[in-house]
Amino acid sequence: MPELSSCAVHTATLKPWDLATTCSKLAAAGVAGVSIWRDKVAPDEGGVGLEEAVKIVKSSGLAVPAYVRGGFFPAADAGERRVAVDHNKSMLDEAAALGAEQVVLVVGAVPSVPLNAARVQVAEGIAACVEHAEAVGVKLAIEPLHPMYAADKSCINTIASARAVCDEVDHPIVGVAVDVYHVWWDPDLEAQIAALGEESRLFGFHVCDWRVPTRDLLLDRALMGDGCIDVAGIRKMVERAGFAGLGEVEIFSTEHWAEDQDDYLDRICGRFVSAS
Amino acid sequence: MPELSSCAVHTATLKPWDLATTCSKLAAAGVAGVSIWRDKVAPDEGGVGLEEAVKIVKSSGLAVPAYVRGGFFPAADAGERRVAVDHNKSMLDEAAALGAEQVVLVVGAVPSVPLNAARVQVAEGIAACVEHAEAVGVKLAIEPLHPMYAADKSCINTIASARAVCDEVDHPIVGVAVDVYHVWWDPDLEAQIAALGEESRLFGFHVCDWRVPTRDLLLDRALMGDGCIDVAGIRKMVERAGFAGLGEVEIFSTEHWAEDQDDYLDRICGRFVSAS
Repeated sequence: MPELSSCAVHTATLKPWDLATTCSKLAAAGVAGVSIWRDKVAPDEGGVGLEEAVKIVKSSGLAVPAYVRGGFFPAADAGERRVAVDHNKSMLDEAAALGAEQVVLVVGAVPSVPLNAARVQVAEGIAACVEHAEAVGVKLAIEPLHPMYAADKSCINTIASARAVCDEVDHPIVGVAVDVYHVWWDPDLEAQIAALGEESRLFGFHVCDWRVPTRDLLLDRALMGDGCIDVAGIRKMVERAGFAGLGEVEIFSTEHWAEDQDDYLDRICGRFVSAS
Repeated sequence: MPELSSCAVHTATLKPWDLATTCSKLAAAGVAGVSIWRDKVAPDEGGVGLEEAVKIVKSSGLAVPAYVRGGFFPAADAGERRVAVDHNKSMLDEAAALGAEQVVLVVGAVPSVPLNAARVQVAEGIAACVEHAEAVGVKLAIEPLHPMYAADKSCINTIASARAVCDEVDHPIVGVAVDVYHVWWDPDLEAQIAALGEESRLFGFHVCDWRVPTRDLLLDRALMGDGCIDVAGIRKMVERAGFAGLGEVEIFSTEHWAEDQDDYLDRICGRFVSAS
Protein backbone atom coordinates (compact mmCIF):
# COMPACT_ATOMS: atom_id res chain seq x y z
CA MET A 1 0.00 0.00 0.00
CA PRO A 2 1.28 3.45 -0.93
CA GLU A 3 2.00 5.91 1.87
CA LEU A 4 1.12 9.58 2.06
CA SER A 5 4.80 10.33 1.66
CA SER A 6 4.33 9.27 -1.98
CA CYS A 7 1.16 11.32 -2.46
CA ALA A 8 0.59 14.66 -4.17
CA VAL A 9 -2.74 16.39 -4.70
CA HIS A 10 -3.71 18.69 -7.56
CA THR A 11 -4.99 22.13 -6.62
CA ALA A 12 -7.93 21.43 -8.97
CA THR A 13 -8.93 18.52 -6.72
CA LEU A 14 -9.58 20.97 -3.88
CA LYS A 15 -10.79 23.73 -6.17
CA PRO A 16 -12.75 25.71 -3.56
CA TRP A 17 -9.55 26.40 -1.59
CA ASP A 18 -7.04 29.06 -2.53
CA LEU A 19 -3.41 28.11 -3.03
CA ALA A 20 -2.26 29.05 0.49
CA THR A 21 -5.06 27.04 2.12
CA THR A 22 -4.46 24.01 -0.10
CA CYS A 23 -0.73 24.02 0.58
CA SER A 24 -1.01 24.42 4.34
CA LYS A 25 -3.75 21.78 4.62
CA LEU A 26 -1.81 19.29 2.47
CA ALA A 27 1.37 19.81 4.46
CA ALA A 28 -0.53 19.42 7.73
CA ALA A 29 -2.11 16.19 6.47
CA GLY A 30 1.29 14.70 5.69
CA VAL A 31 0.84 14.78 1.94
CA ALA A 32 4.20 15.14 0.19
CA GLY A 33 3.39 17.27 -2.81
CA VAL A 34 1.06 19.62 -4.63
CA SER A 35 0.54 19.83 -8.37
CA ILE A 36 -0.37 23.37 -9.21
CA TRP A 37 -2.91 24.50 -11.77
CA ARG A 38 -2.27 27.80 -13.46
CA ASP A 39 -5.57 29.34 -12.27
CA LYS A 40 -4.12 29.48 -8.75
CA VAL A 41 -1.02 31.32 -10.01
CA ALA A 42 -1.68 33.53 -13.02
CA PRO A 43 -3.49 36.81 -12.33
CA ASP A 44 -5.22 36.57 -15.75
CA GLU A 45 -6.93 33.41 -14.47
CA GLY A 46 -7.63 34.78 -11.00
CA GLY A 47 -4.43 33.53 -9.34
CA VAL A 48 -2.31 35.14 -6.67
CA GLY A 49 0.55 36.02 -8.99
CA LEU A 50 3.74 34.06 -9.55
CA GLU A 51 5.86 35.73 -6.87
CA GLU A 52 3.26 35.14 -4.17
CA ALA A 53 2.64 31.58 -5.40
CA VAL A 54 6.35 30.78 -5.22
CA LYS A 55 6.47 32.09 -1.61
CA ILE A 56 3.46 29.99 -0.61
CA VAL A 57 4.77 26.82 -2.17
CA LYS A 58 8.37 27.15 -0.95
CA SER A 59 7.28 27.88 2.62
CA SER A 60 4.94 24.87 2.60
CA GLY A 61 7.83 22.50 2.02
CA LEU A 62 5.74 20.57 -0.48
CA ALA A 63 7.25 19.03 -3.60
CA VAL A 64 5.71 20.12 -6.90
CA PRO A 65 5.56 17.21 -9.33
CA ALA A 66 3.62 19.15 -11.95
CA TYR A 67 2.46 22.52 -13.19
CA VAL A 68 -0.83 22.11 -15.05
CA ARG A 69 -1.66 22.48 -17.84
CA GLY A 70 0.21 23.46 -20.93
CA GLY A 71 -0.44 22.22 -24.43
CA PHE A 72 -3.40 23.19 -26.64
CA PHE A 73 -1.15 23.37 -29.67
CA PRO A 74 -3.47 22.65 -32.64
CA ALA A 75 -5.16 25.52 -34.43
CA ALA A 76 -6.19 26.15 -38.02
CA ASP A 77 -4.20 29.39 -37.99
CA ALA A 78 -0.38 29.34 -37.87
CA GLY A 79 -0.31 32.58 -35.88
CA GLU A 80 -2.46 30.99 -33.19
CA ARG A 81 -0.12 28.04 -33.08
CA ARG A 82 2.83 30.38 -32.46
CA VAL A 83 0.89 32.04 -29.64
CA ALA A 84 0.34 28.60 -28.13
CA VAL A 85 4.07 27.83 -28.23
CA ASP A 86 4.86 31.15 -26.54
CA HIS A 87 2.26 30.43 -23.88
CA ASN A 88 3.86 27.06 -23.19
CA LYS A 89 7.28 28.69 -22.87
CA SER A 90 5.82 31.10 -20.30
CA MET A 91 4.37 28.16 -18.44
CA LEU A 92 7.78 26.51 -18.42
CA ASP A 93 9.20 29.67 -16.83
CA GLU A 94 6.45 29.71 -14.22
CA ALA A 95 6.97 26.00 -13.57
CA ALA A 96 10.69 26.55 -13.06
CA ALA A 97 10.02 29.35 -10.58
CA LEU A 98 7.60 27.10 -8.68
CA GLY A 99 10.15 24.29 -8.60
CA ALA A 100 7.84 22.03 -10.63
CA GLU A 101 9.37 18.92 -12.18
CA GLN A 102 7.21 18.98 -15.28
CA VAL A 103 4.57 20.86 -17.21
CA VAL A 104 1.66 18.57 -18.02
CA LEU A 105 0.51 18.93 -21.61
CA VAL A 106 -3.14 18.57 -22.50
CA VAL A 107 -2.17 18.70 -26.11
CA GLY A 108 -5.36 20.14 -27.57
CA ALA A 109 -7.77 19.46 -30.42
CA VAL A 110 -10.09 21.66 -32.42
CA PRO A 111 -13.00 20.48 -34.54
CA SER A 112 -11.68 22.50 -37.51
CA VAL A 113 -8.42 20.52 -37.71
CA PRO A 114 -8.58 16.80 -38.62
CA LEU A 115 -7.12 14.60 -35.89
CA ASN A 116 -4.15 13.38 -37.92
CA ALA A 117 -3.19 16.93 -38.84
CA ALA A 118 -3.67 18.00 -35.23
CA ARG A 119 -1.29 15.25 -34.10
CA VAL A 120 1.37 16.63 -36.44
CA GLN A 121 0.81 20.13 -35.05
CA VAL A 122 1.20 18.78 -31.52
CA ALA A 123 4.58 17.25 -32.34
CA GLU A 124 5.66 20.53 -33.97
CA GLY A 125 4.47 22.55 -31.00
CA ILE A 126 6.25 20.37 -28.47
CA ALA A 127 9.42 20.35 -30.57
CA ALA A 128 9.34 24.16 -30.54
CA CYS A 129 9.34 24.12 -26.72
CA VAL A 130 12.05 21.55 -26.10
CA GLU A 131 15.03 23.87 -26.11
CA HIS A 132 13.32 26.22 -23.68
CA ALA A 133 12.31 23.31 -21.44
CA GLU A 134 15.91 22.16 -21.34
CA ALA A 135 17.16 25.66 -20.56
CA VAL A 136 14.85 26.03 -17.55
CA GLY A 137 15.17 22.40 -16.46
CA VAL A 138 11.49 21.46 -16.58
CA LYS A 139 10.20 18.30 -18.25
CA LEU A 140 7.29 18.18 -20.70
CA ALA A 141 4.76 15.41 -20.00
CA ILE A 142 2.17 14.56 -22.62
CA GLU A 143 -1.00 13.39 -20.90
CA PRO A 144 -3.05 11.16 -23.19
CA LEU A 145 -6.68 12.09 -22.59
CA HIS A 146 -9.68 9.75 -22.74
CA PRO A 147 -11.08 9.43 -26.27
CA MET A 148 -14.24 11.24 -25.15
CA TYR A 149 -12.12 14.42 -25.22
CA ALA A 150 -10.87 13.95 -28.80
CA ALA A 151 -13.15 16.62 -30.25
CA ASP A 152 -11.94 19.65 -28.37
CA LYS A 153 -9.34 18.86 -25.71
CA SER A 154 -6.81 16.32 -26.91
CA CYS A 155 -6.02 14.54 -30.15
CA ILE A 156 -3.72 12.19 -28.21
CA ASN A 157 -5.95 9.57 -26.64
CA THR A 158 -3.77 6.56 -25.93
CA ILE A 159 -0.32 5.99 -24.46
CA ALA A 160 0.71 4.51 -27.82
CA SER A 161 -0.26 7.74 -29.55
CA ALA A 162 1.66 9.81 -26.95
CA ARG A 163 4.69 7.59 -27.46
CA ALA A 164 4.48 8.21 -31.21
CA VAL A 165 4.75 11.96 -30.54
CA CYS A 166 7.67 11.32 -28.18
CA ASP A 167 9.37 9.33 -30.95
CA GLU A 168 8.77 12.20 -33.35
CA VAL A 169 10.22 14.84 -31.02
CA ASP A 170 12.91 12.46 -29.79
CA HIS A 171 14.24 14.32 -26.77
CA PRO A 172 14.67 12.95 -23.22
CA ILE A 173 12.91 15.98 -21.73
CA VAL A 174 9.63 14.86 -23.34
CA GLY A 175 7.67 12.01 -21.77
CA VAL A 176 4.21 10.93 -20.68
CA ALA A 177 1.93 11.41 -17.67
CA VAL A 178 -0.38 8.44 -17.17
CA ASP A 179 -3.76 9.21 -15.61
CA VAL A 180 -5.79 6.11 -14.74
CA TYR A 181 -9.00 7.91 -15.72
CA HIS A 182 -7.89 8.29 -19.31
CA VAL A 183 -6.24 4.95 -19.99
CA TRP A 184 -7.82 2.29 -17.76
CA TRP A 185 -9.95 0.86 -20.61
CA ASP A 186 -6.97 0.29 -22.95
CA PRO A 187 -6.56 -3.42 -23.75
CA ASP A 188 -2.87 -2.75 -24.34
CA LEU A 189 -2.34 -0.85 -21.07
CA GLU A 190 0.20 -3.09 -19.37
CA ALA A 191 2.48 -3.35 -22.40
CA GLN A 192 2.24 0.39 -23.05
CA ILE A 193 3.19 1.29 -19.50
CA ALA A 194 6.07 -1.18 -19.62
CA ALA A 195 7.27 0.42 -22.86
CA LEU A 196 7.20 3.86 -21.22
CA GLY A 197 9.42 2.48 -18.51
CA GLU A 198 11.91 1.02 -20.94
CA GLU A 199 12.02 4.32 -22.79
CA SER A 200 12.50 6.35 -19.55
CA ARG A 201 9.41 8.31 -20.50
CA LEU A 202 7.10 7.67 -17.55
CA PHE A 203 7.04 11.12 -15.95
CA GLY A 204 3.79 11.18 -13.99
CA PHE A 205 1.07 9.01 -12.50
CA HIS A 206 -2.38 10.48 -11.76
CA VAL A 207 -5.08 8.72 -9.78
CA CYS A 208 -8.84 9.05 -9.33
CA ASP A 209 -11.68 6.69 -10.32
CA TRP A 210 -14.41 6.21 -12.95
CA ARG A 211 -17.88 6.61 -11.48
CA VAL A 212 -20.58 4.15 -12.64
CA PRO A 213 -22.66 5.64 -14.10
CA THR A 214 -20.71 8.75 -15.05
CA ARG A 215 -23.14 11.67 -15.17
CA ASP A 216 -20.95 14.31 -16.77
CA LEU A 217 -18.12 14.06 -19.28
CA LEU A 218 -15.85 16.41 -17.37
CA LEU A 219 -16.77 16.98 -13.74
CA ASP A 220 -17.89 13.63 -12.36
CA ARG A 221 -14.66 11.86 -11.46
CA ALA A 222 -14.73 9.65 -8.38
CA LEU A 223 -12.48 9.18 -5.40
CA MET A 224 -10.26 6.12 -5.66
CA GLY A 225 -12.33 3.10 -4.57
CA ASP A 226 -15.67 4.65 -5.54
CA GLY A 227 -15.52 3.59 -9.18
CA CYS A 228 -14.60 0.69 -11.41
CA ILE A 229 -10.90 1.32 -12.08
CA ASP A 230 -8.39 -1.12 -10.64
CA VAL A 231 -6.17 1.74 -9.48
CA ALA A 232 -3.93 -0.47 -7.37
CA GLY A 233 -3.43 -2.80 -10.33
CA ILE A 234 -2.37 0.07 -12.56
CA ARG A 235 -0.08 1.37 -9.80
CA LYS A 236 1.66 -2.01 -9.84
CA MET A 237 2.21 -1.71 -13.58
CA VAL A 238 3.65 1.76 -13.12
CA GLU A 239 5.94 0.62 -10.32
CA ARG A 240 7.14 -2.36 -12.35
CA ALA A 241 7.97 0.15 -15.08
CA GLY A 242 10.28 1.87 -12.61
CA PHE A 243 8.18 4.87 -11.67
CA ALA A 244 9.24 6.20 -8.26
CA GLY A 245 7.63 9.65 -8.28
CA LEU A 246 4.65 10.91 -6.33
CA GLY A 247 1.18 9.65 -7.20
CA GLU A 248 -0.96 12.68 -8.00
CA VAL A 249 -4.62 12.79 -6.97
CA GLU A 250 -6.51 14.63 -9.68
CA ILE A 251 -10.29 14.67 -9.29
CA PHE A 252 -12.70 17.09 -10.95
CA SER A 253 -16.05 16.69 -9.28
CA THR A 254 -18.84 19.16 -8.71
CA GLU A 255 -20.15 16.72 -6.11
CA HIS A 256 -16.93 16.62 -4.11
CA TRP A 257 -16.23 20.36 -4.52
CA ALA A 258 -19.59 21.02 -2.82
CA GLU A 259 -18.54 19.05 0.27
CA ASP A 260 -16.61 20.22 3.31
CA GLN A 261 -13.08 20.23 1.89
CA ASP A 262 -11.42 19.27 5.18
CA ASP A 263 -13.52 16.11 5.42
CA TYR A 264 -12.91 15.47 1.76
CA LEU A 265 -9.15 15.80 2.14
CA ASP A 266 -9.29 13.27 4.99
CA ARG A 267 -11.01 10.81 2.69
CA ILE A 268 -8.58 11.55 -0.16
CA CYS A 269 -5.69 10.68 2.14
CA GLY A 270 -7.38 7.52 3.39
CA ARG A 271 -8.24 6.31 -0.07
CA PHE A 272 -4.81 7.10 -1.46
CA VAL A 273 -3.47 4.58 1.04
CA SER A 274 -6.27 1.99 0.91
CA ALA A 275 -7.45 2.11 -2.70
CA SER A 276 -4.69 3.32 -4.99
CA MET B 1 -22.18 11.04 -52.47
CA PRO B 2 -24.20 8.11 -51.16
CA GLU B 3 -27.80 7.73 -52.29
CA LEU B 4 -30.85 6.88 -50.20
CA SER B 5 -30.89 3.51 -51.91
CA SER B 6 -27.83 2.71 -49.76
CA CYS B 7 -29.39 4.07 -46.54
CA ALA B 8 -30.98 2.28 -43.61
CA VAL B 9 -32.27 3.91 -40.43
CA HIS B 10 -32.37 2.36 -36.95
CA THR B 11 -35.74 2.29 -35.23
CA ALA B 12 -33.98 3.84 -32.20
CA THR B 13 -33.18 6.90 -34.32
CA LEU B 14 -36.90 7.61 -34.65
CA LYS B 15 -37.74 6.30 -31.20
CA PRO B 16 -41.07 8.14 -30.77
CA TRP B 17 -42.57 6.24 -33.73
CA ASP B 18 -43.87 2.68 -33.49
CA LEU B 19 -42.51 0.05 -35.86
CA ALA B 20 -45.33 0.33 -38.40
CA THR B 21 -45.01 4.11 -38.61
CA THR B 22 -41.22 3.97 -38.92
CA CYS B 23 -41.34 1.36 -41.67
CA SER B 24 -44.01 3.11 -43.72
CA LYS B 25 -42.33 6.51 -43.39
CA LEU B 26 -38.91 5.12 -44.33
CA ALA B 27 -40.29 3.31 -47.34
CA ALA B 28 -42.17 6.43 -48.45
CA ALA B 29 -38.98 8.49 -48.10
CA GLY B 30 -37.07 6.16 -50.38
CA VAL B 31 -34.85 4.78 -47.65
CA ALA B 32 -33.77 1.23 -48.43
CA GLY B 33 -33.63 -0.41 -45.03
CA VAL B 34 -34.53 -0.44 -41.38
CA SER B 35 -32.42 -1.82 -38.56
CA ILE B 36 -34.76 -3.02 -35.88
CA TRP B 37 -34.26 -2.68 -32.16
CA ARG B 38 -35.71 -5.39 -29.98
CA ASP B 39 -37.91 -2.95 -28.02
CA LYS B 40 -40.10 -2.56 -31.12
CA VAL B 41 -40.51 -6.34 -31.42
CA ALA B 42 -40.42 -8.14 -28.07
CA PRO B 43 -43.56 -7.85 -25.92
CA ASP B 44 -41.39 -7.92 -22.76
CA GLU B 45 -39.84 -4.64 -23.94
CA GLY B 46 -43.12 -3.13 -25.13
CA GLY B 47 -42.90 -4.33 -28.75
CA VAL B 48 -45.67 -5.51 -31.06
CA GLY B 49 -44.67 -9.17 -30.95
CA LEU B 50 -42.55 -11.04 -33.44
CA GLU B 51 -45.35 -12.21 -35.73
CA GLU B 52 -46.77 -8.72 -36.13
CA ALA B 53 -43.27 -7.25 -36.53
CA VAL B 54 -42.47 -9.70 -39.31
CA LYS B 55 -45.70 -8.76 -41.12
CA ILE B 56 -44.94 -5.04 -40.83
CA VAL B 57 -41.39 -5.38 -42.07
CA LYS B 58 -42.12 -7.77 -44.95
CA SER B 59 -44.97 -5.64 -46.23
CA SER B 60 -42.81 -2.51 -46.11
CA GLY B 61 -40.37 -3.99 -48.61
CA LEU B 62 -37.48 -2.64 -46.54
CA ALA B 63 -34.22 -4.54 -46.16
CA VAL B 64 -33.16 -5.32 -42.59
CA PRO B 65 -29.38 -5.01 -42.23
CA ALA B 66 -29.42 -5.52 -38.47
CA TYR B 67 -31.38 -6.64 -35.45
CA VAL B 68 -30.19 -4.74 -32.40
CA ARG B 69 -28.80 -5.50 -29.91
CA GLY B 70 -27.50 -8.79 -28.65
CA GLY B 71 -24.40 -9.31 -26.57
CA PHE B 72 -24.04 -8.40 -22.88
CA PHE B 73 -22.13 -11.60 -22.22
CA PRO B 74 -19.91 -10.81 -19.19
CA ALA B 75 -21.16 -11.55 -15.71
CA ALA B 76 -19.50 -12.63 -12.47
CA ASP B 77 -21.91 -15.58 -12.28
CA ALA B 78 -21.64 -18.49 -14.76
CA GLY B 79 -25.40 -19.06 -14.63
CA GLU B 80 -25.99 -15.48 -15.73
CA ARG B 81 -23.57 -15.97 -18.59
CA ARG B 82 -25.54 -19.02 -19.76
CA VAL B 83 -28.76 -16.97 -19.64
CA ALA B 84 -27.03 -14.35 -21.82
CA VAL B 85 -26.08 -16.97 -24.40
CA ASP B 86 -29.66 -18.29 -24.49
CA HIS B 87 -30.96 -14.75 -24.93
CA ASN B 88 -28.61 -14.21 -27.86
CA LYS B 89 -29.83 -17.44 -29.47
CA SER B 90 -33.41 -16.20 -29.14
CA MET B 91 -32.37 -12.94 -30.76
CA LEU B 92 -30.82 -14.89 -33.62
CA ASP B 93 -34.17 -16.67 -34.11
CA GLU B 94 -36.03 -13.36 -34.06
CA ALA B 95 -33.50 -11.85 -36.47
CA ALA B 96 -33.95 -14.76 -38.86
CA ALA B 97 -37.73 -14.35 -38.77
CA LEU B 98 -37.36 -10.64 -39.51
CA GLY B 99 -35.00 -11.34 -42.40
CA ALA B 100 -32.16 -9.49 -40.67
CA GLU B 101 -28.65 -10.01 -42.01
CA GLN B 102 -26.95 -9.75 -38.64
CA VAL B 103 -27.43 -9.39 -34.92
CA VAL B 104 -25.37 -6.47 -33.61
CA LEU B 105 -23.51 -7.34 -30.43
CA VAL B 106 -22.98 -4.73 -27.75
CA VAL B 107 -20.76 -7.17 -25.97
CA GLY B 108 -21.23 -5.98 -22.40
CA ALA B 109 -19.13 -5.05 -19.38
CA VAL B 110 -19.80 -5.12 -15.67
CA PRO B 111 -17.81 -3.28 -13.01
CA SER B 112 -17.43 -6.51 -11.03
CA VAL B 113 -15.49 -8.30 -13.79
CA PRO B 114 -12.04 -6.95 -14.79
CA LEU B 115 -11.91 -5.91 -18.43
CA ASN B 116 -9.45 -8.60 -19.52
CA ALA B 117 -11.58 -11.31 -17.94
CA ALA B 118 -14.69 -9.80 -19.48
CA ARG B 119 -13.05 -9.95 -22.92
CA VAL B 120 -12.46 -13.66 -22.45
CA GLN B 121 -16.09 -14.14 -21.42
CA VAL B 122 -17.21 -12.27 -24.54
CA ALA B 123 -15.23 -14.59 -26.80
CA GLU B 124 -16.68 -17.59 -24.96
CA GLY B 125 -20.21 -16.22 -25.23
CA ILE B 126 -19.94 -15.54 -28.94
CA ALA B 127 -18.36 -18.94 -29.56
CA ALA B 128 -21.34 -20.53 -27.84
CA CYS B 129 -23.69 -18.78 -30.31
CA VAL B 130 -21.85 -19.49 -33.54
CA GLU B 131 -23.42 -22.84 -34.35
CA HIS B 132 -26.90 -21.43 -33.81
CA ALA B 133 -26.10 -18.37 -35.93
CA GLU B 134 -25.00 -20.63 -38.75
CA ALA B 135 -28.10 -22.78 -38.44
CA VAL B 136 -30.43 -19.79 -38.78
CA GLY B 137 -28.24 -17.97 -41.32
CA VAL B 138 -27.73 -14.74 -39.36
CA LYS B 139 -24.31 -13.11 -38.88
CA LEU B 140 -22.94 -11.89 -35.55
CA ALA B 141 -21.43 -8.39 -35.68
CA ILE B 142 -19.34 -7.19 -32.77
CA GLU B 143 -19.75 -3.42 -32.42
CA PRO B 144 -16.76 -1.88 -30.66
CA LEU B 145 -18.15 0.82 -28.38
CA HIS B 146 -16.49 4.11 -27.48
CA PRO B 147 -14.15 3.76 -24.48
CA MET B 148 -16.52 5.93 -22.43
CA TYR B 149 -18.78 2.86 -22.28
CA ALA B 150 -16.10 0.49 -20.96
CA ALA B 151 -17.46 0.45 -17.42
CA ASP B 152 -20.90 -0.97 -18.02
CA LYS B 153 -21.71 -1.48 -21.70
CA SER B 154 -18.78 -2.87 -23.63
CA CYS B 155 -15.31 -4.17 -22.83
CA ILE B 156 -14.50 -4.07 -26.57
CA ASN B 157 -13.62 -0.48 -27.36
CA THR B 158 -11.53 -0.54 -30.53
CA ILE B 159 -11.72 -2.32 -33.86
CA ALA B 160 -8.40 -3.99 -33.01
CA SER B 161 -9.93 -5.42 -29.85
CA ALA B 162 -12.99 -6.65 -31.77
CA ARG B 163 -10.71 -8.29 -34.33
CA ALA B 164 -8.88 -10.06 -31.51
CA VAL B 165 -12.19 -11.61 -30.43
CA CYS B 166 -12.94 -12.56 -34.05
CA ASP B 167 -9.53 -14.26 -34.21
CA GLU B 168 -10.33 -16.11 -31.01
CA VAL B 169 -13.72 -17.35 -32.23
CA ASP B 170 -12.40 -17.85 -35.76
CA HIS B 171 -15.62 -18.35 -37.70
CA PRO B 172 -16.71 -16.50 -40.86
CA ILE B 173 -20.15 -15.77 -39.37
CA VAL B 174 -18.52 -13.46 -36.80
CA GLY B 175 -17.44 -9.97 -37.86
CA VAL B 176 -17.56 -6.31 -36.89
CA ALA B 177 -19.99 -3.41 -37.20
CA VAL B 178 -18.15 -0.07 -37.42
CA ASP B 179 -19.99 2.94 -35.98
CA VAL B 180 -18.29 6.25 -36.67
CA TYR B 181 -19.34 7.53 -33.23
CA HIS B 182 -17.32 4.89 -31.43
CA VAL B 183 -14.16 4.76 -33.53
CA TRP B 184 -13.58 8.16 -35.18
CA TRP B 185 -10.89 9.16 -32.66
CA ASP B 186 -8.75 6.02 -33.26
CA PRO B 187 -5.32 6.98 -34.67
CA ASP B 188 -5.17 3.54 -36.28
CA LEU B 189 -8.65 3.76 -37.86
CA GLU B 190 -7.76 3.53 -41.52
CA ALA B 191 -5.48 0.50 -41.10
CA GLN B 192 -8.01 -1.24 -38.87
CA ILE B 193 -10.85 -0.78 -41.34
CA ALA B 194 -8.62 -2.00 -44.16
CA ALA B 195 -7.76 -5.08 -42.09
CA LEU B 196 -11.47 -5.80 -41.57
CA GLY B 197 -11.89 -5.71 -45.32
CA GLU B 198 -9.03 -8.10 -45.94
CA GLU B 199 -10.46 -10.47 -43.35
CA SER B 200 -14.01 -10.27 -44.82
CA ARG B 201 -15.21 -9.15 -41.42
CA LEU B 202 -16.72 -5.74 -42.15
CA PHE B 203 -20.41 -6.48 -41.62
CA GLY B 204 -21.92 -3.10 -40.83
CA PHE B 205 -21.39 0.65 -41.08
CA HIS B 206 -23.26 3.03 -38.76
CA VAL B 207 -23.32 6.80 -39.13
CA CYS B 208 -24.16 9.78 -36.93
CA ASP B 209 -21.95 12.60 -35.60
CA TRP B 210 -20.16 13.74 -32.43
CA ARG B 211 -21.66 16.93 -31.03
CA VAL B 212 -19.25 19.58 -29.70
CA PRO B 213 -19.65 19.92 -26.82
CA THR B 214 -21.34 16.61 -26.03
CA ARG B 215 -23.74 17.18 -23.13
CA ASP B 216 -24.63 13.60 -22.28
CA LEU B 217 -22.66 10.37 -22.54
CA LEU B 218 -25.50 8.42 -24.13
CA LEU B 219 -28.26 10.53 -25.63
CA ASP B 220 -26.58 13.48 -27.33
CA ARG B 221 -25.51 12.14 -30.70
CA ALA B 222 -25.70 14.55 -33.62
CA LEU B 223 -27.00 14.33 -37.15
CA MET B 224 -24.27 13.84 -39.74
CA GLY B 225 -22.77 17.24 -40.50
CA ASP B 226 -23.65 18.73 -37.11
CA GLY B 227 -20.54 17.44 -35.34
CA CYS B 228 -16.82 16.99 -35.78
CA ILE B 229 -16.60 13.53 -37.36
CA ASP B 230 -15.39 13.29 -40.95
CA VAL B 231 -18.15 10.82 -41.77
CA ALA B 232 -17.56 10.98 -45.52
CA GLY B 233 -13.87 10.29 -44.96
CA ILE B 234 -14.63 7.21 -42.90
CA ARG B 235 -17.18 6.09 -45.52
CA LYS B 236 -14.38 6.19 -48.09
CA MET B 237 -12.23 3.95 -45.87
CA VAL B 238 -15.13 1.52 -45.52
CA GLU B 239 -15.79 1.48 -49.25
CA ARG B 240 -12.10 0.95 -50.01
CA ALA B 241 -12.31 -2.03 -47.67
CA GLY B 242 -15.00 -3.47 -49.92
CA PHE B 243 -18.09 -2.71 -47.88
CA ALA B 244 -21.14 -2.60 -50.14
CA GLY B 245 -23.96 -2.85 -47.58
CA LEU B 246 -26.38 -0.19 -46.42
CA GLY B 247 -25.14 2.67 -44.27
CA GLU B 248 -27.19 2.65 -41.06
CA VAL B 249 -28.21 5.92 -39.41
CA GLU B 250 -28.13 5.36 -35.66
CA ILE B 251 -28.70 8.48 -33.56
CA PHE B 252 -29.75 8.54 -29.90
CA SER B 253 -30.72 12.10 -29.07
CA THR B 254 -33.25 13.44 -26.60
CA GLU B 255 -33.07 16.70 -28.56
CA HIS B 256 -33.97 15.12 -31.90
CA TRP B 257 -36.56 12.78 -30.38
CA ALA B 258 -38.40 15.87 -29.11
CA GLU B 259 -38.69 17.29 -32.63
CA ASP B 260 -41.35 16.64 -35.26
CA GLN B 261 -40.19 13.24 -36.54
CA ASP B 262 -41.35 13.84 -40.11
CA ASP B 263 -39.20 16.97 -40.37
CA TYR B 264 -36.37 15.13 -38.68
CA LEU B 265 -36.57 12.22 -41.12
CA ASP B 266 -36.40 14.71 -44.00
CA ARG B 267 -33.16 16.08 -42.55
CA ILE B 268 -31.78 12.60 -41.89
CA CYS B 269 -32.31 11.75 -45.55
CA GLY B 270 -30.76 15.02 -46.72
CA ARG B 271 -27.73 14.67 -44.49
CA PHE B 272 -27.21 11.02 -45.37
CA VAL B 273 -26.69 12.19 -48.94
CA SER B 274 -24.82 15.45 -48.29
CA ALA B 275 -22.77 14.70 -45.18
CA SER B 276 -22.06 11.00 -44.88
